[in-house]
Amino acid sequence: MTRHLIDIEALPPGDAERLIARAVALSRGARPEACRGEIIQLFWEPSTRTRVSFELAAHRLGLRPLSIDPERSSSTKGESLEDTCRTLAAMQPTALVVRHAEAGTPQRVAGALAGTGVAVVNAGDGARAHPTQALLDAATLADEGIDWAGARIVLLGDLRHSRVARSAFSLYRRLGVEDLRMSGPSALLPDPDDPAFRGVARVEDIDAALDDAGVVVCLRIQRERIRALSLPDADAYHAAWGLTEERAGRLRPDARVLHPGPVNRGVEIAPGVADGERSRILRQVRMGVWLRMAVFEWVAGAAESTPSA
Amino acid sequence: MTRHLIDIEALPPGDAERLIARAVALSRGARPEACRGEIIQLFWEPSTRTRVSFELAAHRLGLRPLSIDPERSSSTKGESLEDTCRTLAAMQPTALVVRHAEAGTPQRVAGALAGTGVAVVNAGDGARAHPTQALLDAATLADEGIDWAGARIVLLGDLRHSRVARSAFSLYRRLGVEDLRMSGPSALLPDPDDPAFRGVARVEDIDAALDDAGVVVCLRIQRERIRALSLPDADAYHAAWGLTEERAGRLRPDARVLHPGPVNRGVEIAPGVADGERSRILRQVRMGVWLRMAVFEWVAGAAESTPSA
Amino acid sequence: MTRHLIDIEALPPGDAERLIARAVALSRGARPEACRGEIIQLFWEPSTRTRVSFELAAHRLGLRPLSIDPERSSSTKGESLEDTCRTLAAMQPTALVVRHAEAGTPQRVAGALAGTGVAVVNAGDGARAHPTQALLDAATLADEGIDWAGARIVLLGDLRHSRVARSAFSLYRRLGVEDLRMSGPSALLPDPDDPAFRGVARVEDIDAALDDAGVVVCLRIQRERIRALSLPDADAYHAAWGLTEERAGRLRPDARVLHPGPVNRGVEIAPGVADGERSRILRQVRMGVWLRMAVFEWVAGAAESTPSA
Repeated sequence: MTRHLIDIEALPPGDAERLIARAVALSRGARPEACRGEIIQLFWEPSTRTRVSFELAAHRLGLRPLSIDPERSSSTKGESLEDTCRTLAAMQPTALVVRHAEAGTPQRVAGALAGTGVAVVNAGDGARAHPTQALLDAATLADEGIDWAGARIVLLGDLRHSRVARSAFSLYRRLGVEDLRMSGPSALLPDPDDPAFRGVARVEDIDAALDDAGVVVCLRIQRERIRALSLPDADAYHAAWGLTEERAGRLRPDARVLHPGPVNRGVEIAPGVADGERSRILRQVRMGVWLRMAVFEWVAGAAESTPSA
Repeated sequence: MTRHLIDIEALPPGDAERLIARAVALSRGARPEACRGEIIQLFWEPSTRTRVSFELAAHRLGLRPLSIDPERSSSTKGESLEDTCRTLAAMQPTALVVRHAEAGTPQRVAGALAGTGVAVVNAGDGARAHPTQALLDAATLADEGIDWAGARIVLLGDLRHSRVARSAFSLYRRLGVEDLRMSGPSALLPDPDDPAFRGVARVEDIDAALDDAGVVVCLRIQRERIRALSLPDADAYHAAWGLTEERAGRLRPDARVLHPGPVNRGVEIAPGVADGERSRILRQVRMGVWLRMAVFEWVAGAAESTPSA
Repeated sequence: MTRHLIDIEALPPGDAERLIARAVALSRGARPEACRGEIIQLFWEPSTRTRVSFELAAHRLGLRPLSIDPERSSSTKGESLEDTCRTLAAMQPTALVVRHAEAGTPQRVAGALAGTGVAVVNAGDGARAHPTQALLDAATLADEGIDWAGARIVLLGDLRHSRVARSAFSLYRRLGVEDLRMSGPSALLPDPDDPAFRGVARVEDIDAALDDAGVVVCLRIQRERIRALSLPDADAYHAAWGLTEERAGRLRPDARVLHPGPVNRGVEIAPGVADGERSRILRQVRMGVWLRMAVFEWVAGAAESTPSA
């Protein structure tokens, strides 16, 4: 059976926990499994940091990473997404890593690749899912021995458009976190019936939301979205909805601050907080490579037992 | 002696057959020769699928592929093509893989590299030649045990501007195919005295051309060229000159359908034919990597016995 | 201690000489040290030849090169240069290779990476420094047994805007060259008090400058700069300030001609001189790979003894 990583929901029972534990073990010196083959990254939506993280993860396992920028490729113009992916799969890489602005694209790709034995790894689709980000955040916290059942985790900012938030809540629920919260401008909170936010408390007052929080995740806010709010500028957003120095100073001493990056300093997070002792931002980046190694091991392990098509 | 793959005509006797046989052997599990060194791809005309195919082929032999996009490179602006290539050759890669919109460029590059021991592999020059495409098509057919002497091979569509067609006919003649045909809109057929089409029957009626064909190769048609014909749209082209479901249904039961890709579905070929049981399109893509591995082995084998300049 | 290669001045005593000797040894067949890890190239100012040279050097040591084009990356927009570099460093590559149009950027990057154990290699910053070019030029000359103390070295052309010139003079002074000269249009000579040109004789008459020269380095002139001079065209520049066939014919028989490339044929150098027997241009390119291998060995050697942050 080919293993795909499309979203947290579709992971078999226990596999999220296993991927997190494996990333932590790799970060502590466990020997990576030697893999052979190639990983093709197809990023319709460009991303340097995520692309580099996947490339380094592949390389450190002995897999060769290749990157394709389909938006710039004239040769794929006029060709359907399915044909592009089926063509690449016919060259028999281990996996395609896919990022696309449209939600649901990784499933479309997985459908097109049925029977080929080539895996699909979702590197972010629309506002729907970004499972490796959720897993690396959890691995960063697991590495510090977090108690999931007792944790209060708060996500701040633009929840509505955030694939990071949707995958994060899905994973935290699965890991047994009971106290999940979100806070942000009401225009940037999700629809009340969005199932991705099931069980997450909306706390309008950001300071109330942060009270006794063990983990605070600041989400990146696009500057266009600030303009759409009734706020004059990014400073006003920061004062109203950012993790300011003052708010960070009131956090529990053992609270941890996460951010998926890239950081808008002085907007969703104060520079001193991003660089402060509560910040786990660079640890997340580092763990990201270990987590993606764990994902490729998991995918390649399944590939080995799959007869090639 | 440095070996170049510029076109089918310049291949030493027996080498086309050897490259095809080697690609088939590799596809069936023969052990690749371990190579060392680097392949530099210089694509003045961009192509994702061909670039990736060459990259994977290089990687699977232990060669490191590097890609340069000279059109986007400001640093090569003002520098002659010869100086760019000589500079890269001075860094001692195993081969340069060259694609260019202008016919004859690979020969220019080979001339510039005389004495350096660096090979040139043509990945397509203008409408002149695309030798690895011809060889991989032939390897796809050879893998199925085609009888070259008894085969009827028909190429359809825009023959005039097709480097694929020119290299294909050159190779098929060499392999002993006697019954070669072409059919397409008269404005897209080659000049009657074009030597690349020597011995190829022009059959105006596409249905007559397809009669009793063992191999049908659909060529990609550019949409601009359809507009230049006296046809209202791509659907009209498909009805008049495409491999429709209906035409495919009248083919011999054992007929094989090839297409160099990328496919314009519903234009030169019906979607159901591209995905149907006669289609060898994805097999061509897969064989392409094996064939390019065979080419790099052939090039690198010669390089080993060449004293470095 | 993490070793950076920012400029010639900051190299510890003896290290320039060691890097040059190591490049020469590698070019003569010394076994490269096996390294592990990755090199990330961050070229805010694009350069094909330098990027490829660093990539090949990394690959030949077993290091994986990755290239990032931050100017084209939308994901780094809005992120500070320091944050981009710290994020990449958190992924634990061996080194970042940095090129930027602004002088001083490599120091900024090294400052941002303090404590990470990740090295910075300067691939050119503004008009300030290009240390690997200076070192590879010197290695090209050292390979031929040049006597530094007795050498007369002349740089021609646009000295004012040349990071190549600044690093070259810095290195040649360090190697004990006493007779350093420059010649070019007065508008393109440096300010008299520019310390980078300390000890370099300004010779207004180019023919006097070339008299008895053992080494002549032609610098690339940008065509925009010719227009800013009171010269009608590139031919006039060539006649006035280029290394013409005639001038080259009057050089000492053992004089060597260097050029950092890419060459403007017929502008700063006559085509016949660029290709002539005095030219070392392609030898510079070849030595460039060996020199950059020596730099990566030097950087990675220090990294091994650095505890990871």
